[in-house]
Amino acid sequence: MIIPVILSGGSGTRLWPLSRKAMPKQFRSLTGTNTLIQDTASRLTSLSNVDRPLVVCGAAHVNRVIDQLGVAPSILIEPAAKNTAPAVASACLAAVERDANAIVVVLPSDHVIGDVTEFARMVSLATTTAGQGYMTTFGVIPTYAATGYGYIQPGRPIAHGASRIAAFVEKPDVNTATRYLEEGFLWNAGIFVFRAADFLTELEIHAPTMFELVTTAYEGSTLTGNTRLLDSDSWNAIEPLSVDYAVMESTTRGAVLPLSCGWSDIGSWATLYDLGNADKDGNVVGGQVYLSNVKNSYVRSESKPVVVLGVHDLIIVETEDSVLVMHRDSAEDIKTVAERLPDDLK
Amino acid sequence: MIIPVILSGGSGTRLWPLSRKAMPKQFRSLTGTNTLIQDTASRLTSLSNVDRPLVVCGAAHVNRVIDQLGVAPSILIEPAAKNTAPAVASACLAAVERDANAIVVVLPSDHVIGDVTEFARMVSLATTTAGQGYMTTFGVIPTYAATGYGYIQPGRPIAHGASRIAAFVEKPDVNTATRYLEEGFLWNAGIFVFRAADFLTELEIHAPTMFELVTTAYEGSTLTGNTRLLDSDSWNAIEPLSVDYAVMESTTRGAVLPLSCGWSDIGSWATLYDLGNADKDGNVVGGQVYLSNVKNSYVRSESKPVVVLGVHDLIIVETEDSVLVMHRDSAEDIKTVAERLPDDLK
Repeated sequence: MIIPVILSGGSGTRLWPLSRKAMPKQFRSLTGTNTLIQDTASRLTSLSNVDRPLVVCGAAHVNRVIDQLGVAPSILIEPAAKNTAPAVASACLAAVERDANAIVVVLPSDHVIGDVTEFARMVSLATTTAGQGYMTTFGVIPTYAATGYGYIQPGRPIAHGASRIAAFVEKPDVNTATRYLEEGFLWNAGIFVFRAADFLTELEIHAPTMFELVTTAYEGSTLTGNTRLLDSDSWNAIEPLSVDYAVMESTTRGAVLPLSCGWSDIGSWATLYDLGNADKDGNVVGGQVYLSNVKNSYVRSESKPVVVLGVHDLIIVETEDSVLVMHRDSAEDIKTVAERLPDDLK
Repeated sequence: MIIPVILSGGSGTRLWPLSRKAMPKQFRSLTGTNTLIQDTASRLTSLSNVDRPLVVCGAAHVNRVIDQLGVAPSILIEPAAKNTAPAVASACLAAVERDANAIVVVLPSDHVIGDVTEFARMVSLATTTAGQGYMTTFGVIPTYAATGYGYIQPGRPIAHGASRIAAFVEKPDVNTATRYLEEGFLWNAGIFVFRAADFLTELEIHAPTMFELVTTAYEGSTLTGNTRLLDSDSWNAIEPLSVDYAVMESTTRGAVLPLSCGWSDIGSWATLYDLGNADKDGNVVGGQVYLSNVKNSYVRSESKPVVVLGVHDLIIVETEDSVLVMHRDSAEDIKTVAERLPDDLK
């Protein structure tokens, strides 16, 4: 049995004002009709033997998850955000309750996949390596020397195109990124495929305290319908850690599978500009927008008309409760600025 | 008796989205607490012998005039906008009914005067020359080589600092404007002081058809309380013409009085930027605005927070129903763009 585990605990502000603490970007429709979490949930429906997804999120977002995905998923409520490892561990505990041999596919809820068919094919391949006991992570084949991602250095080939993991490396500067590109390093996309039981075993070995606290939080949880609230006393004691740090960098069972499927984590408005269909002036527009002498800009109106004149390389986003105007080169800075805003705007 | 004549027939879109057909800029507060028409109406209150103002406006704006000025003014409703000469002529007909020797001070309702005391002093001076039979216009002493105004060439001095008018000249190019500045030409501000009866006499001489049509429209008008609706059949037949073209350029009784009182017609958003109090980064802001690495920009929020990052020389205006983002150098182009918008946005 394959169980999609959808991680929806993030509340990124890099897409402020569209992505907010109260309304993170996974609940928004950014590039199509469906929201990102809806696209995520439907990403594996073409595969056979796929069970209902498990969604891990904060209490503030449970209703949005139910609204957008319907009542089908099981929901695990994190009392606090603790990075990805505890979230995945609690999902694995729920998965083994369904099926001791369950293979989980860990999917961040706010990524875009352009070629869903190819992605499903690669997940299917990864379930084979996972079935052989490998802890598989996808490594996205880079399309440019990105400095915004961590990289994975592939090691000795194993099977089905997968390799051992030689090293995880941090976000590089642009020279290092160029070298990584030449040397065949892959982007670390945070998408994993492994047997739930294997993850728990490895977590117990490499992060025993976390394993114990997550287990206690799960055992002390409260189940209401499909929704399980993890016990906050144990959960709050957990040290936040990513899956990479807690398990993947230490395990001897790691594998990486190269992926080329139009992946993006939509890390900034500049990325959304790149993903959009630019017109002949290089503009990507959405909503009621009127341009005159505008070049290479992203203009998005959600609630009222936006008129733009004589500018270039801007990102302009109008939402029901705020307006953002910034240079495309400032797209990485919005996170810092958004954090300084009054609470009701964060 | 001095009667202020406030011209409120304009519906300029150069300050779109704040100035609209339905809500022209004279009804907005742009630089202070009061609206521009309120400031205009209170501009002469320091002078003695000033009677209630006469306001000329379109039917669509009567209620705004009453709301903003109270019930005190007499209102003349133009069935259609016909430029300034017919508006002033109808006001002069109303003025001579109050007092055959009334001196009218023609005030556009959408100008800013920085030094109201000086302005009142100059109006007082102008009423003296007007009492001697001169048709007096104010010529603003230029502060830079503006290409956005017509100019007045002063002629032979008469008295009280006033001169005959040598010539009215059209908006110049920048080289010509520089020469005008050196040669002591003055900006044509469209502010006039004359005896109402004199204006009517001169209009009858220099624009007899207009004189006849305005007289007929006035005689056929409908009076309701303080509000007089001019007869539309005659009014609609009038050829639109400015006071300058209809009378001032032809009359032998013209005079110009130099004025230096912080005058502005707020012709564009760039002007509002210039009039504002810039902070150390050269930004003029109003409303709930958050800036980061922004220079020399005008940012105005009327209804919701506006966040701006990494840009310079922009004009950003957010109103209840629209957003404008433009380069400061494009400030003159908004008029053209606004006219192409759907009717409900004009």
